[in-house]
Amino acid sequence: YTRESYQGNEIPGVVTGLAWTAHGGEILFVESSLSTGKGGLTLTGNLGEVMKESAMLALEYLKSHREELGIDQNVFDNNNFHVHVPEGAIPKDGPSAGVTMVTSLASSLSKRKVRKNIAMTGEITLRGKVLPVGGIKEKILAAKRAGIKEILLSADNKKDLEEIKDVYLKGLKFHFVKTISDVLDYALLKS
Amino acid sequence: YTRESYQGNEIPGVVTGLAWTAHGGEILFVESSLSTGKGGLTLTGNLGEVMKESAMLALEYLKSHREELGIDQNVFDNNNFHVHVPEGAIPKDGPSAGVTMVTSLASSLSKRKVRKNIAMTGEITLRGKVLPVGGIKEKILAAKRAGIKEILLSADNKKDLEEIKDVYLKGLKFHFVKTISDVLDYALLKS
Amino acid sequence: YTRESYQGNEIPGVVTGLAWTAHGGEILFVESSLSTGKGGLTLTGNLGEVMKESAMLALEYLKSHREELGIDQNVFDNNNFHVHVPEGAIPKDGPSAGVTMVTSLASSLSKRKVRKNIAMTGEITLRGKVLPVGGIKEKILAAKRAGIKEILLSADNKKDLEEIKDVYLKGLKFHFVKTISDVLDYALLKS
Amino acid sequence: YTRESYQGNEIPGVVTGLAWTAHGGEILFVESSLSTGKGGLTLTGNLGEVMKESAMLALEYLKSHREELGIDQNVFDNNNFHVHVPEGAIPKDGPSAGVTMVTSLASSLSKRKVRKNIAMTGEITLRGKVLPVGGIKEKILAAKRAGIKEILLSADNKKDLEEIKDVYLKGLKFHFVKTISDVLDYALLKS
Amino acid sequence: YTRESYQGNEIPGVVTGLAWTAHGGEILFVESSLSTGKGGLTLTGNLGEVMKESAMLALEYLKSHREELGIDQNVFDNNNFHVHVPEGAIPKDGPSAGVTMVTSLASSLSKRKVRKNIAMTGEITLRGKVLPVGGIKEKILAAKRAGIKEILLSADNKKDLEEIKDVYLKGLKFHFVKTISDVLDYALLKS
Amino acid sequence: YTRESYQGNEIPGVVTGLAWTAHGGEILFVESSLSTGKGGLTLTGNLGEVMKESAMLALEYLKSHREELGIDQNVFDNNNFHVHVPEGAIPKDGPSAGVTMVTSLASSLSKRKVRKNIAMTGEITLRGKVLPVGGIKEKILAAKRAGIKEILLSADNKKDLEEIKDVYLKGLKFHFVKTISDVLDYALLKS
Ligand SMILES: [Ca+2]
Ligand SMILES: [Ca+2]
Ligand SMILES: [Ca+2]
Ligand SMILES: [Ca+2]
Ligand SMILES: [Ca+2]
Ligand SMILES: [Ca+2]
Ligand SMILES: [Ca+2]
Ligand SMILES: [Ca+2]
Ligand SMILES: [Ca+2]
Ligand SMILES: [Ca+2]
Ligand SMILES: [Ca+2]
Ligand SMILES: [Ca+2]
Repeated sequence: YTRESYQGNEIPGVVTGLAWTAHGGEILFVESSLSTGKGGLTLTGNLGEVMKESAMLALEYLKSHREELGIDQNVFDNNNFHVHVPEGAIPKDGPSAGVTMVTSLASSLSKRKVRKNIAMTGEITLRGKVLPVGGIKEKILAAKRAGIKEILLSADNKKDLEEIKDVYLKGLKFHFVKTISDVLDYALLKS
Repeated sequence: YTRESYQGNEIPGVVTGLAWTAHGGEILFVESSLSTGKGGLTLTGNLGEVMKESAMLALEYLKSHREELGIDQNVFDNNNFHVHVPEGAIPKDGPSAGVTMVTSLASSLSKRKVRKNIAMTGEITLRGKVLPVGGIKEKILAAKRAGIKEILLSADNKKDLEEIKDVYLKGLKFHFVKTISDVLDYALLKS
Repeated sequence: YTRESYQGNEIPGVVTGLAWTAHGGEILFVESSLSTGKGGLTLTGNLGEVMKESAMLALEYLKSHREELGIDQNVFDNNNFHVHVPEGAIPKDGPSAGVTMVTSLASSLSKRKVRKNIAMTGEITLRGKVLPVGGIKEKILAAKRAGIKEILLSADNKKDLEEIKDVYLKGLKFHFVKTISDVLDYALLKS
Repeated sequence: YTRESYQGNEIPGVVTGLAWTAHGGEILFVESSLSTGKGGLTLTGNLGEVMKESAMLALEYLKSHREELGIDQNVFDNNNFHVHVPEGAIPKDGPSAGVTMVTSLASSLSKRKVRKNIAMTGEITLRGKVLPVGGIKEKILAAKRAGIKEILLSADNKKDLEEIKDVYLKGLKFHFVKTISDVLDYALLKS
Repeated sequence: YTRESYQGNEIPGVVTGLAWTAHGGEILFVESSLSTGKGGLTLTGNLGEVMKESAMLALEYLKSHREELGIDQNVFDNNNFHVHVPEGAIPKDGPSAGVTMVTSLASSLSKRKVRKNIAMTGEITLRGKVLPVGGIKEKILAAKRAGIKEILLSADNKKDLEEIKDVYLKGLKFHFVKTISDVLDYALLKS
Repeated sequence: YTRESYQGNEIPGVVTGLAWTAHGGEILFVESSLSTGKGGLTLTGNLGEVMKESAMLALEYLKSHREELGIDQNVFDNNNFHVHVPEGAIPKDGPSAGVTMVTSLASSLSKRKVRKNIAMTGEITLRGKVLPVGGIKEKILAAKRAGIKEILLSADNKKDLEEIKDVYLKGLKFHFVKTISDVLDYALLKS
């Protein structure tokens, strides 16, 4: 109903993503939370199968890299994980929220806040690569409208910026990544 | 068959919501109850996937904010939770019963009664935001017909009231919220 | 194949309900039984989703009101529950067997017999309300044909009787209820 | 492919039923077996939902009447149950194999053999009634062709025999039952 | 892609079956293996429901006859069972691989090798009967092409051979069986 | 979006496969990882049923051959396994990634790196055979474009090379295998 705008970074686990729909670009929010449990993963927000797989990949990446990330195994064993993407009335799908999901879960797990005024888009893989995604121009326009200052993209999406007029890019900073490790290093603030 | 009317607040866990269907606005009741169990969530009332997700979000929010809300972890571990929306013959869907569901579950968990003569509508998110929903005009008319005195809405639905004639709003009090925390503070009576 | 007739109340857990189909009213029987188990609920008789939800509501109501009803928690923990509605070849659905199901389960749990010559119809809700249902005239005719003497209905169905000619009502006693508690008080004999 | 004929009663758990298809009556065999397990029920033979429900009813009846039937609770707790209806290429459905299934399972559980040269058809209910079924004439013809000498039917199917010419009934003995208890008393030999 | 040929009997658990498709007869291989587990059964190879039921029947037969077959209960409790039918791109269905599946599983369980140069086809039942199947002529031609020397069939398929010209049968030995017990006695070599 | 190129062998568990789609040949990557768990297998990447079966076969083969492969049973009992095939937006199916999947899982389990500059395609079976697959010409062209130096194929695909002009094969080395054991011996480097 209303065009969302960026909403601050006060709450760990909330990360701004960029979606590309039939109606153009849009920002979206990925929220995640932990509660006492036995490792279950709940996914809500009217998500399609591919988008659900992104969340599964994100959680699995964090589990299998928990030592590098300094996360205790107990955290995975003694919590349930919930990832939600408002707004429930809108069906959502595709792999491009992968970076947003892994950042959201890592923020919830570590309680580290997310860098201010940033939005991101990119597919993730199990080994930790960040793949390029489509709709970059529309996503950038949506990010500007929403008050975003910085955009994180796959290094393989760098070439897409060349086709966008400078006026649209003005006032935006871009950060390019190759791996999930790059994403988390940049997007999560030191606690 | 019959147009329902507001039915009092004697039973914790029963909350009046507002729905918007092809036939106009309607009030509905969200009921919840607890029974000895291991944390299961049962959803009945001919609910669609998105409406079921609202109940999942509501329970997860309460679990992950249990410390602020003063709820013991044992309550989640040793009960099953059931959320029902009469009437079974009518299919129901959409995210707008979110505030109603989280209030119902919080009331059942805390045994606190719900504020008298209030009805509510609004989508909830996992981080605890209350999002605006559609059909506000029709919902308000339905609330009046049913004898409701007070309506709780998302602050982002305030602008929808401007388009409604004063005669329709007369005799109704509005309470606007931004967060689930606002909802529960206002809608649940001190025990 | 054959038009059923009322069949006595010798067996606890068997309750006569009233259904409304494309072919007019009909009586039906709800049967339930307990066997050693861990709380599972099995539903048979070619039942649609809404009718299955009625049985789930019935069992949940009994669980969450077990103290008022004097039922030990062990009964729920150490039994499986099975609700069946003959005849298997006929698909059945809708919420109107709710009162019949909760009476059947309560009779099986308590071993209290059901009042003789009674039939019933009404939707139940989780908080224990009994809602009105449709097809009252057709159901009453079917009950008479089957030798039923007494019919239990939601108080909100009382007005439906006014539209039925006295000749059809002759020889029938009506009992109106507002709550599941009313139903069980009236329909179950003291053991 | 081949028209089956009656096959003796040497193996407990194998019972001859009567089916009614678009091609006329047919005999069928219900087989059941036990193996060490935790109470699971497996159903094979290309069975539809209603026919699967018959097997669930049969097992539940035996569980909830285990004391009258002299079956130890351990038997239910420490075995899995498998009911199969050859032939796998033919889809099968409907409630009329109920008596055949409950006899098969009771025979497997008790190791009592089935009465020789008998076939049966009838729907069962959870409280233990045997309901009438259709296609009696076609089923009787099929039974004769297969060398069956005795047919067990619901007492409510007695009237169907009046419409069948004596020549078809010649050489067949009929046994009418009202309850599952009648079925098992008659169809299972004393061990 | 390539027409398979018989491939030796070096590996226990690999058995040659005969299939009948729209393109004529074909040989197929049923493979099975055990791994440490808790009794699970995994079925792969693009199998339809009826073919999956054959594998369930095969495993259940072996479980419920384990004493005659000299198999320890521990074998069933402490392993998972996997049955695979290459080739994954081709959907397969029907009951005729029953004898092949039970022989494969029995070979894996006992580590006994399968008789050399044999192929088989036949439906199995839970009580251990072997039922006749269709497409015998086409299956025999496929077996010859593949270098098979001996074919195991249901005794009820003996009559199908009469309709096949002698030239096609030349060089093939036939073994007819009535029961799974006959199959295993003949097809598995003494260890 | 971008044509992938070979990406090194630094990370165990990442293996290059060859796919054949309506648009010609393509390389793909199979990734796998382990995390603490109880033996679960998670499959992502928009995979069809047959491709999922390949991963199930791969894991089962490794489990049932764990002694020859020198893998401790604890590894299977105390980990979850995740196999992913980027890119999520593209549906993938078919059995030809079997060799790629078993190599990926074996590499993850053993931490042995994969041979440099190799790609592979071939269906696997439970007994450990490698079956020929289609689209060899198109797959070879895609491998060359991507900088692959060596291609592993089923020995039964050797004949497919004869139909390909020498110019296309120039600069490529081929390794033919008959079994999974051949695949792992060749494709995994000694640790
Ligand atoms: Ca939006
Ligand atoms: Ca995104
Ligand atoms: Ca209503
Ligand atoms: Ca609402
Ligand atoms: Ca009837
Ligand atoms: Ca009823
Ligand atoms: Ca037949
Ligand atoms: Ca029958
Ligand atoms: Ca073939
Ligand atoms: Ca076969
Ligand atoms: Ca690609
Ligand atoms: Ca491949």
